[in-house]
Amino acid sequence: MVNFTAEHKAFRELVRNFAEKEIGPFADEWEAKGIFPAHELFPKLGRLGLLGVEYDEKYGGQGADHLFTVILHEELGRVGPGGVALGIGVQTDMATPSLHNFGTEELKQKYLVPAIKGEAVCSVAVTEPDVGSDVVALRTRAVRDGDDWVINGSKLYITNGAQADWICLLARTSDKPGYGSFSQIVVPTDAPGFEVHRKLDKLGMRSSDTAELTFTDVRVPVGNTIGEIGLGFYQQMSQFQNERLSLSYTAVGGMETALARTADYLKARQAFGKPLIDQQYIGFTLAELSGRLDMLRHYNYTAAEAYIRGEDVNRFATVAKLEAGRLAREIAATCLQFHGGLGYMEEMWTARYFRDSPMWSIGGGADEVMLYALSRLDGYHG
Amino acid sequence: MVNFTAEHKAFRELVRNFAEKEIGPFADEWEAKGIFPAHELFPKLGRLGLLGVEYDEKYGGQGADHLFTVILHEELGRVGPGGVALGIGVQTDMATPSLHNFGTEELKQKYLVPAIKGEAVCSVAVTEPDVGSDVVALRTRAVRDGDDWVINGSKLYITNGAQADWICLLARTSDKPGYGSFSQIVVPTDAPGFEVHRKLDKLGMRSSDTAELTFTDVRVPVGNTIGEIGLGFYQQMSQFQNERLSLSYTAVGGMETALARTADYLKARQAFGKPLIDQQYIGFTLAELSGRLDMLRHYNYTAAEAYIRGEDVNRFATVAKLEAGRLAREIAATCLQFHGGLGYMEEMWTARYFRDSPMWSIGGGADEVMLYALSRLDGYHG
Amino acid sequence: MVNFTAEHKAFRELVRNFAEKEIGPFADEWEAKGIFPAHELFPKLGRLGLLGVEYDEKYGGQGADHLFTVILHEELGRVGPGGVALGIGVQTDMATPSLHNFGTEELKQKYLVPAIKGEAVCSVAVTEPDVGSDVVALRTRAVRDGDDWVINGSKLYITNGAQADWICLLARTSDKPGYGSFSQIVVPTDAPGFEVHRKLDKLGMRSSDTAELTFTDVRVPVGNTIGEIGLGFYQQMSQFQNERLSLSYTAVGGMETALARTADYLKARQAFGKPLIDQQYIGFTLAELSGRLDMLRHYNYTAAEAYIRGEDVNRFATVAKLEAGRLAREIAATCLQFHGGLGYMEEMWTARYFRDSPMWSIGGGADEVMLYALSRLDGYHG
Amino acid sequence: MVNFTAEHKAFRELVRNFAEKEIGPFADEWEAKGIFPAHELFPKLGRLGLLGVEYDEKYGGQGADHLFTVILHEELGRVGPGGVALGIGVQTDMATPSLHNFGTEELKQKYLVPAIKGEAVCSVAVTEPDVGSDVVALRTRAVRDGDDWVINGSKLYITNGAQADWICLLARTSDKPGYGSFSQIVVPTDAPGFEVHRKLDKLGMRSSDTAELTFTDVRVPVGNTIGEIGLGFYQQMSQFQNERLSLSYTAVGGMETALARTADYLKARQAFGKPLIDQQYIGFTLAELSGRLDMLRHYNYTAAEAYIRGEDVNRFATVAKLEAGRLAREIAATCLQFHGGLGYMEEMWTARYFRDSPMWSIGGGADEVMLYALSRLDGYHG
Repeated sequence: MVNFTAEHKAFRELVRNFAEKEIGPFADEWEAKGIFPAHELFPKLGRLGLLGVEYDEKYGGQGADHLFTVILHEELGRVGPGGVALGIGVQTDMATPSLHNFGTEELKQKYLVPAIKGEAVCSVAVTEPDVGSDVVALRTRAVRDGDDWVINGSKLYITNGAQADWICLLARTSDKPGYGSFSQIVVPTDAPGFEVHRKLDKLGMRSSDTAELTFTDVRVPVGNTIGEIGLGFYQQMSQFQNERLSLSYTAVGGMETALARTADYLKARQAFGKPLIDQQYIGFTLAELSGRLDMLRHYNYTAAEAYIRGEDVNRFATVAKLEAGRLAREIAATCLQFHGGLGYMEEMWTARYFRDSPMWSIGGGADEVMLYALSRLDGYHG
Repeated sequence: MVNFTAEHKAFRELVRNFAEKEIGPFADEWEAKGIFPAHELFPKLGRLGLLGVEYDEKYGGQGADHLFTVILHEELGRVGPGGVALGIGVQTDMATPSLHNFGTEELKQKYLVPAIKGEAVCSVAVTEPDVGSDVVALRTRAVRDGDDWVINGSKLYITNGAQADWICLLARTSDKPGYGSFSQIVVPTDAPGFEVHRKLDKLGMRSSDTAELTFTDVRVPVGNTIGEIGLGFYQQMSQFQNERLSLSYTAVGGMETALARTADYLKARQAFGKPLIDQQYIGFTLAELSGRLDMLRHYNYTAAEAYIRGEDVNRFATVAKLEAGRLAREIAATCLQFHGGLGYMEEMWTARYFRDSPMWSIGGGADEVMLYALSRLDGYHG
Repeated sequence: MVNFTAEHKAFRELVRNFAEKEIGPFADEWEAKGIFPAHELFPKLGRLGLLGVEYDEKYGGQGADHLFTVILHEELGRVGPGGVALGIGVQTDMATPSLHNFGTEELKQKYLVPAIKGEAVCSVAVTEPDVGSDVVALRTRAVRDGDDWVINGSKLYITNGAQADWICLLARTSDKPGYGSFSQIVVPTDAPGFEVHRKLDKLGMRSSDTAELTFTDVRVPVGNTIGEIGLGFYQQMSQFQNERLSLSYTAVGGMETALARTADYLKARQAFGKPLIDQQYIGFTLAELSGRLDMLRHYNYTAAEAYIRGEDVNRFATVAKLEAGRLAREIAATCLQFHGGLGYMEEMWTARYFRDSPMWSIGGGADEVMLYALSRLDGYHG
Repeated sequence: MVNFTAEHKAFRELVRNFAEKEIGPFADEWEAKGIFPAHELFPKLGRLGLLGVEYDEKYGGQGADHLFTVILHEELGRVGPGGVALGIGVQTDMATPSLHNFGTEELKQKYLVPAIKGEAVCSVAVTEPDVGSDVVALRTRAVRDGDDWVINGSKLYITNGAQADWICLLARTSDKPGYGSFSQIVVPTDAPGFEVHRKLDKLGMRSSDTAELTFTDVRVPVGNTIGEIGLGFYQQMSQFQNERLSLSYTAVGGMETALARTADYLKARQAFGKPLIDQQYIGFTLAELSGRLDMLRHYNYTAAEAYIRGEDVNRFATVAKLEAGRLAREIAATCLQFHGGLGYMEEMWTARYFRDSPMWSIGGGADEVMLYALSRLDGYHG
């Protein structure tokens, strides 16, 4: 079992206090606006070292272990709203790991350092209007012209996309079939030809902005390529592992809050002469969900420890994200249900959480993609 | 198996055409406003005889059989949005059955006739701010003063409440413990002391208005009592059966549309070299849901036939509503999921339907209330 | 809703009394032996007209409507054990419908008449050692030699196979690919070359004998072909509908008994100061299962009425069998569970029913085959 | 994540080899007999140190850490059959922990030492004919008479009961209400008045003997009391934690084997032109189960590490046992189902495993008891 040190615990306090003070009170406002002010919030996070927890100190990171990352996302998830936690997660664990792991020193100085400081907001762009999980079919293309890439195409469902300063773009850089024809490229959003085509109006995670981006003859130096040309697909697959893990960590935090708030409500609410929580069916249902949540939490910790040891965590990330999605949806639906009519009011956290909940089964690869991956990993194929 | 006649089929066409012309095109507008214009829409429904399908012709009803009611709600559910179907259902099957079955001739002439014409919008008020399923604990009170009831209290989650012309109110009319201390009273909303305390902002069913109502020394004649003084609880329980059945009919229509639209999308959407619907896991999942939907649809028909024969349909209504709630939620979640990121966009029907779906497990008595009722009906108690 | 007449009700009494007297008391003995004495039991059934309920009176049938068939199987299922109900179902609804519907007059006089009398035990043979659901791959072959078929091959999991007098065999009669190369042939089991290769030892349904059959140069007249040569596949598909419906009817009867017995036990069993049934979680769980059972029962009735009207019942049979299998397994597991340690004793009906229960998800086409069929019927494919 | 050392891995090899050589080949024989020869098998286990893995070396134990216990049970579960693994688990983790933790030196020398050597077979007796989970209602009574206890009563569902040399008995030793009126007493089975009333015939776990025991004026010295008089209930609750954990460890081993064997079968079995495992629905279903199994396995490891640290593992044991029971039943049913007719043959491991599987949801406290405990632990009560 994971051994959280006093430092870990102090860090948990730090994040919780920060989130309760700098995020929680603004949740309703940001949810209503459909965006949280990343350029205001991120520098605050950056000053506390929360945007580069594990990253090398020479880029402004904390050089801490991965358990600090677990704690960061659990606490952001716990305070909520999900949208802000998601936007921060994109910055820390979805858009920057490839750059940190594979980028040139120059590229890191230029793009990673400000991201860790919170001065630059970043984003990762893989999905396209007609292509979701079938990555090989991606069509956004970067064609080499001298020392530049000339990029054309469009990307969809891009979190932080409306306010990002740079994008970790996965683009086709060769016509070869297969996985070896993609590269990851840093695209600054002030490059001519880049456009936030439209900001998307989502069911949930509303404080997180999501955009469709278009690239029209966008020129960036070939030096903006992260890692090797042609290895972008593999690097992104690796980056997806961080994405999936961080989504699972956040989900656990959110579910904890949901169960705790629901229990509080049901203890206070009287019916038939006793608190609703004393209806056995209700108590047992919550107990079952709480048990499953405990399993996921510890599975996350186990994954984190494997990650720290440098082991392959592909299977951990896949199983954890799948269960995070399944369980978050079930807990959200149950918490709403057990609040009755009140739970169905838009002003209630239950409604917001219910709207948020499908995201964990879609983002970072849909449940069905996880099942496919798992069926391959575990040898369930001929 | 139910034998729909040519008349039934023609009626289905009629309702469908009406809904597609008079409701569907305005769905987005009404959803955005949080209310549909009942005083505009209901007279149109009334002219077609859709607001009193089974009611006695002498009050303007059609005197038709209950299968027409099934068809009405299936078709309203099919076209959607759920909120409008719900608002109409309140008018036809939740607020007026007691009046039709137990009201005096005078009361019916005054309140039922305009409701059937669509000139009066009506509503039923049972739930209170602190009392949901535990009806015995209701506190809104009507105290007799000469020939008047003087009513004080408040009611919550009242569909059509913001624009109703009269309310079928369940109020305490005696201090005796138990079920014999309630009465149903028609309360016109222009009575002094009646107030729409606030219009509620709901997660879903947004085109349907829902309100909290307060009653402050509201005076109505004792002659506004529906049926016998002291039998209101029992009359309401009977009225709940119509409510539950109509909710189940509507739900079936909505689920049919959801599965059909999802199949259409998945046939068109290509990934991995073939339509998504050809992913076996997806096809099988939809097939399973479609099979369960077929069972519910025919169960509804069976219930309707029992209703026509005058049999007790309490168990049918209970089981049907329970399954309607469970299945609608599962189908809504699955349809959203199989649309991927697109399904999560607020502009998509999947998002609206997902937000609507919890209502069927809450309205008309929560799932847990259905389970309780069923455990009593089927003898699962000591 | 189905309208059971006084005749239907009297028939239900008749079957129930018969089963309680002639089957129930011998259940343990037959289960222990792994076979029930069909040649003793069937004549008794035949004398009461129970083996040809719907069949033409000129072959000894009762010419009754399909609801009598529903009642027959419900009652056989209710009294149990499942194995005997299954063996009878093979005789009445799985091995003889094709013969009745498509057989020549001569063939019916020779084979159907004694089957309806109960003098001949019959069986249907489709599955082979290496071929389950993939019917096109069947290898048992009948080659024409003058006026004879010469049959070679083997068939597996054949209910009644160890004591059958004749078999309704599906054999390949041409080398053409596709569905048009099969025929149904009546094979008397005293034909030289026919062998009961081995009697199988099953997990459950133990009073029903199941066998592997081998055919070595078995000669039967071409006149033993049921219906048209080359149409055997289609005739068998039609016969499967009767099989699936009858399995669903039987399952309903069995589940009713299981829930009733469990409720009785839980009412009597005290713990924590009250009957176990008063544990809300237990009562609600049973209520949910009871509700689902009610839906299946009425779905069966709806299917039966459609059958009576001559409508296509393929979808009904598919959905009903699928749900019968799912629900029987869940009810069996729950009833065992709620009996605690006692439920795990081999002497208890719970253990027998738990062992029986997987059969409904395997026999007559596995659940996965039902899902496949349903995904085709409902258009869930590209 | 748990860090298995080279010693742990060698130990795993040791157990696996032992089980494959000394248990596996006799599985069918012992299952058929309804008992495995504990007096032959246990000395072999004892010689390898497998019966006292964590126990103090001065009693013949290995003084190893709890991860060795995890490995022991996983491997016994993996090789199977479940009944033998259960019988060994009773010896190592259900009947002896209290004695080891609370017994006097003398009592340990007399009873624990031979148990660790495998020379004495032991058993734990809590459940009674009319009392399952409601421990306070236990009626078996030990009345003090000088330096002896005089014991009367009976105990039911006692694993190893038919061949035990001594029993860890929970008996009422005072008439006070509540939990403080019980004591744990070592009862040698050669004491006059002790009787194996009957050996029970179980649905599954057939190689494990289970018995009803009766005590008629059985005299044992008061010195045979384990720990303090009056603390028996609490000591047994603690002992139950070891029981539940070991059941979960064993379950994981069994499920691994079941999934692996099923995958092997489905890879070999061809239908519709490809291996069955390539049916996506099948592959995804197995992947989902495999993911859940991985979560349980690591949860067990986490629990084990907490145990090693001396932390309270009550919640871990409760959640793990609950999920072990749920998942084992689901995997058993699925593996049988995916084998089709073959899976239903009594000779197949699928049938045995299906019969075994309900035990994990009953033994060591039923699922419902786990839910109750969890609802208390997690504060889901008023």
